[in-house]
Amino acid sequence: MGEQQLDRVTSDELVYVPASEFRRLLDARLQPHTTTEAFAALARINTLYMIARAWSGHIGTSFSSLDIMSWLFLNEMRDLDRGPGACDIFFSSKGHDAPALYSVLIGLGLLPEEKVDNLRRLHGLPGHPHVETPYIQANTGSLGMGVSKAKGMAIANRLAGTPRRIFVLTGDGELQEGQFWESLASAANHHLAEIVVIVDHNRIQSDTWVEQVSDLGDVEAKLRAFGWHVARCDGHDVRALERTFRALDRIAEQPKVVIADTVKGKGVSFMEGPSMGAGDLYAYHSGAPTEAEYAGGSTELVDRARGLFNASGLGALATKNGRRPERREPRFTQNLISAYKDALVTQADRHPRLVVLDADLVKDCGLVPFAQKYPERFVECGIAEQDMVSMACGLAKRGALPVAHSFACFLSARPNEQIYNQCSEGSKVIYVGSLAGLLPGGPGHSHQSVRDIGALGSVPNLLMAEPSVENEVHALFEYLVDTAVESSYLRLVSVKWPVPFGYPAGQRVQPGRGWVVRDGRDLVVTGYGPWLLSNAWHAAEELQKSFGITTRLINLPWLNRVDSAWLKEAIGDRRAVLLLDNHYVRGGQGEMLAAAVAGLGLDPVASVMRLGVMELPECGTNDEVLAYHGLDVASLVTAFRTAVGRHRPGTVSQPA
Amino acid sequence: MGEQQLDRVTSDELVYVPASEFRRLLDARLQPHTTTEAFAALARINTLYMIARAWSGHIGTSFSSLDIMSWLFLNEMRDLDRGPGACDIFFSSKGHDAPALYSVLIGLGLLPEEKVDNLRRLHGLPGHPHVETPYIQANTGSLGMGVSKAKGMAIANRLAGTPRRIFVLTGDGELQEGQFWESLASAANHHLAEIVVIVDHNRIQSDTWVEQVSDLGDVEAKLRAFGWHVARCDGHDVRALERTFRALDRIAEQPKVVIADTVKGKGVSFMEGPSMGAGDLYAYHSGAPTEAEYAGGSTELVDRARGLFNASGLGALATKNGRRPERREPRFTQNLISAYKDALVTQADRHPRLVVLDADLVKDCGLVPFAQKYPERFVECGIAEQDMVSMACGLAKRGALPVAHSFACFLSARPNEQIYNQCSEGSKVIYVGSLAGLLPGGPGHSHQSVRDIGALGSVPNLLMAEPSVENEVHALFEYLVDTAVESSYLRLVSVKWPVPFGYPAGQRVQPGRGWVVRDGRDLVVTGYGPWLLSNAWHAAEELQKSFGITTRLINLPWLNRVDSAWLKEAIGDRRAVLLLDNHYVRGGQGEMLAAAVAGLGLDPVASVMRLGVMELPECGTNDEVLAYHGLDVASLVTAFRTAVGRHRPGTVSQPA
Repeated sequence: MGEQQLDRVTSDELVYVPASEFRRLLDARLQPHTTTEAFAALARINTLYMIARAWSGHIGTSFSSLDIMSWLFLNEMRDLDRGPGACDIFFSSKGHDAPALYSVLIGLGLLPEEKVDNLRRLHGLPGHPHVETPYIQANTGSLGMGVSKAKGMAIANRLAGTPRRIFVLTGDGELQEGQFWESLASAANHHLAEIVVIVDHNRIQSDTWVEQVSDLGDVEAKLRAFGWHVARCDGHDVRALERTFRALDRIAEQPKVVIADTVKGKGVSFMEGPSMGAGDLYAYHSGAPTEAEYAGGSTELVDRARGLFNASGLGALATKNGRRPERREPRFTQNLISAYKDALVTQADRHPRLVVLDADLVKDCGLVPFAQKYPERFVECGIAEQDMVSMACGLAKRGALPVAHSFACFLSARPNEQIYNQCSEGSKVIYVGSLAGLLPGGPGHSHQSVRDIGALGSVPNLLMAEPSVENEVHALFEYLVDTAVESSYLRLVSVKWPVPFGYPAGQRVQPGRGWVVRDGRDLVVTGYGPWLLSNAWHAAEELQKSFGITTRLINLPWLNRVDSAWLKEAIGDRRAVLLLDNHYVRGGQGEMLAAAVAGLGLDPVASVMRLGVMELPECGTNDEVLAYHGLDVASLVTAFRTAVGRHRPGTVSQPA
Repeated sequence: MGEQQLDRVTSDELVYVPASEFRRLLDARLQPHTTTEAFAALARINTLYMIARAWSGHIGTSFSSLDIMSWLFLNEMRDLDRGPGACDIFFSSKGHDAPALYSVLIGLGLLPEEKVDNLRRLHGLPGHPHVETPYIQANTGSLGMGVSKAKGMAIANRLAGTPRRIFVLTGDGELQEGQFWESLASAANHHLAEIVVIVDHNRIQSDTWVEQVSDLGDVEAKLRAFGWHVARCDGHDVRALERTFRALDRIAEQPKVVIADTVKGKGVSFMEGPSMGAGDLYAYHSGAPTEAEYAGGSTELVDRARGLFNASGLGALATKNGRRPERREPRFTQNLISAYKDALVTQADRHPRLVVLDADLVKDCGLVPFAQKYPERFVECGIAEQDMVSMACGLAKRGALPVAHSFACFLSARPNEQIYNQCSEGSKVIYVGSLAGLLPGGPGHSHQSVRDIGALGSVPNLLMAEPSVENEVHALFEYLVDTAVESSYLRLVSVKWPVPFGYPAGQRVQPGRGWVVRDGRDLVVTGYGPWLLSNAWHAAEELQKSFGITTRLINLPWLNRVDSAWLKEAIGDRRAVLLLDNHYVRGGQGEMLAAAVAGLGLDPVASVMRLGVMELPECGTNDEVLAYHGLDVASLVTAFRTAVGRHRPGTVSQPA
């Protein structure tokens, strides 16, 4: 990030339970309930450790599901020793409980102990499950796919003559997704009794209580109506879990679902859902604990584990220490979500027809101030993106100006056809996709939205825009609300970033036209968004300082629209052109621009290079991910030099 | 299509009821039941007329819903005279019953009588509902969006202080879509009692009985469990409909659903669902009646209407005659669906792990022979594309080779995120999207798939291919099954087309590389698929004959992959390049190729033009649609000349 003012955040001593202590517990061959309770207690310590060390992760849902996972892996899953391809199958459909699952697998010796230090790190344990990790049976992170996947597995197993039980863990908020209900009927019609779904019924979704977001009503009645056998029990009571699973053994003709009543954040008093004040948003869905929260939580968890070890005659519990890596944060950053939060209220004040729709991401999308100021114009849809978009379509048909929100990865893909359908009506809806692009790198590829420009770019009557700094958020959103006659998609990077340039005073918003971030003669580079342009800016500075090569850096905030006359002028007589993307190269802005350059017929011909994401995004820290994908400053310096060298061979050495 | 051998198909005398006879019926002010029954009888005559005249349309679902629509428009819809923005709202979520709705609107004088001759014609009445038509309140054609849209309308109406009743007609097969269930909860939670859903419960979906495709189980219990008030009645008995709607008036706190038991094809004895033989597929879901079917059906309908007129003292029923436009079909055509049908069985014979998944389009996707030969490897998913794709993902994870089918418009968009998720697992699934591209032009833009390359093109590990002739179907599919390590999307044009060239003998399938269809020196044109290449071929011939300009025409069957070295060689020293797309220009193959050309740095520079779909596809006959979008032979001749002229100014005159 170049020279920045950095604040030291913190660095703590952390504690975890080594695999040898799990082994000692398992080898003691205690009564299954005792073993499972103690195992889960150890796994909670390691889960908190992993999340604290990674500086991010989902504590609440990991803790609510840990007793269930522990019971399953210690008592239900057959043939674990025969390897992941030949044993009973377990996977989590909600997926953000991955740290809990990793802790269980490490405790069983199915993943190596040193992995506790690698959550959300490059080539470590991804933020959401990925099948490259041993014993991970499905990529999840986007919700509602679990039962469908289990059905496919069951059919394949039956065709191969190797039937196996398949356990799928879901969230309760997840049941708002239509695919969950879509998937139920054929499981019942085909009598797929080997499928056992466990609903981690902790009653709190991303933001707050499920019943406040989008009440599920009588879940048992719904599931029974779909032809499933339904059981219910306390998901933290291992005896109840055992009774429930034994009763299921007798159901031979129906798929089964267990509604396991749980407590979000179970195990740490102040993280437990019911401790949340009335009207509060739940604080431990995602993110990292503070120093104090970690210390308090870890103490509670270790005390409980020690108590269980003592009570079982296992003696003292040995733990190991690790350190939380120091994290330094730049003092002055651009926070686009915060700017959007203000811009939304500003526009809502001026436009009484503006209605906001959300899909259970009120905090992350910056909607709290609007929702508080205009509760009657705020529509919380729950985790139901297709429903949200078609509702927006209906709202627009009747004269409202709907603004629909989710993470970019979900908003561009899950309701992809619904967005096209809405745009086909010629009405105006504004879509706002946050968490766009490669960063943050921690959640993994299900959340790293590097495909949204391609997925939506062809939709007619849909203008796609991405701001790079806070002032540009205001300018673009105002344009989309006031001036644009068509629908639009505002793509927002959520990571805060120290941006070394500002929005030009008096800049006019014109679709298809961008602005010069810094000027130069030898090379023209295009990009968009805060970190991509910032890294390019620093690379340009470095190139000028070290090699005397000067770069014109251009921000084109329009992702699927370019004005050819402007582009021709922006390139001028420069003949080395490098097009950057915070997106897959295929389908990104650079492809549109390269195609436009080809259409300009520049003479002499320009040398055009494109740089962006080329493969499925890796999970890791932001620095790791940028370096891996060649989009950090150092990699850009090399790319810039190559681009100039391609145009003027001999200027710089060519890479192999 | 150039010089073709054509078979004369038929040209019949058709009969319809003029608006004046509907008016005479309405003005007679008979008892409401009598009026409604007679009105529906007249509307059925016109529905059959419109579909016969258009040579395509959905008879079965139009007839099953006509008594319901007639009752609603004559007796329930308030303030129709205040215009579509101020009256009660009705729309069909299934949408393919559009001819029935048009007949009702024409009968009421809300659409002009001459529109009976314009179904599925350019600027006429679209094959599926479009909001540009008066009193059409929603674009439908893709299923499951209706309740969501109604909720948005209801909220907008409440915010504006102008609440209105909203009637939504759905199919029963449509209830397989997850979005339907996703949309139910919040309607109940928010007490949107102004929404009344009517399920046209005719028990047959596209191919056959709903219970054989994907049984809905106890629909009433399901809907009640979701908090809706449920009523049920005979959907052809106007007295029962009246009783049911009056009872609903008393339900003030819940959204309501009426399960209307109906008969698919109701009104023409041999088209009625229950007349279908055991094991048969239903024959009147879509398509046009033959001469004999029209004659027999129309006679039954007119007889019934005459009887009702006589019995009500209205005297003789006046009808008008129209003619079905002659249709000439080329004798020798390439039928890619038929070729795929064979290719699928061929590969299945060789690959015991190959499993076929379908989403209720077993006929249209060419799956009948496979399903008959390998029933145990055939998975019918119903109208549940998200579920289908995630099932395929689970199948692939357990070692099967799944091949998943739907229309391209649905397959690329509805399960868009599920396909990305599957590809992220690195497993191999083959997706086959039929009905791809701009043609047939009759169903309208919901079915004209001109966005699938863009919507899926960025997905890593997904190779997209499109064959142009039958032999290429076999070659590409064999490659995708045998050789490709990654997932793939086979894009199939469904319209039969007379193709003036053949697949080159000994052609090797190599991703990213295409082949020369015909050669020439002045211009290089790329394209893919049967009609696009055929039209380009004829344009090239014309250009050579009339202007002495010769064209190299290239088929690149790869939609998101190009080999730069091959491309450079394919262009050679030609400097006029025209890139064609059966797709939106933005996100199509041409954009990828233009960007690749920019990267080649050709010197002297090439002049690159792109041609494809630029706006929402129009509905019409194939000829009308091609001409409208500038992709017919005549338009291509002009475009070819412009492309050459741009490169060599003075060679031909430039367009303004």
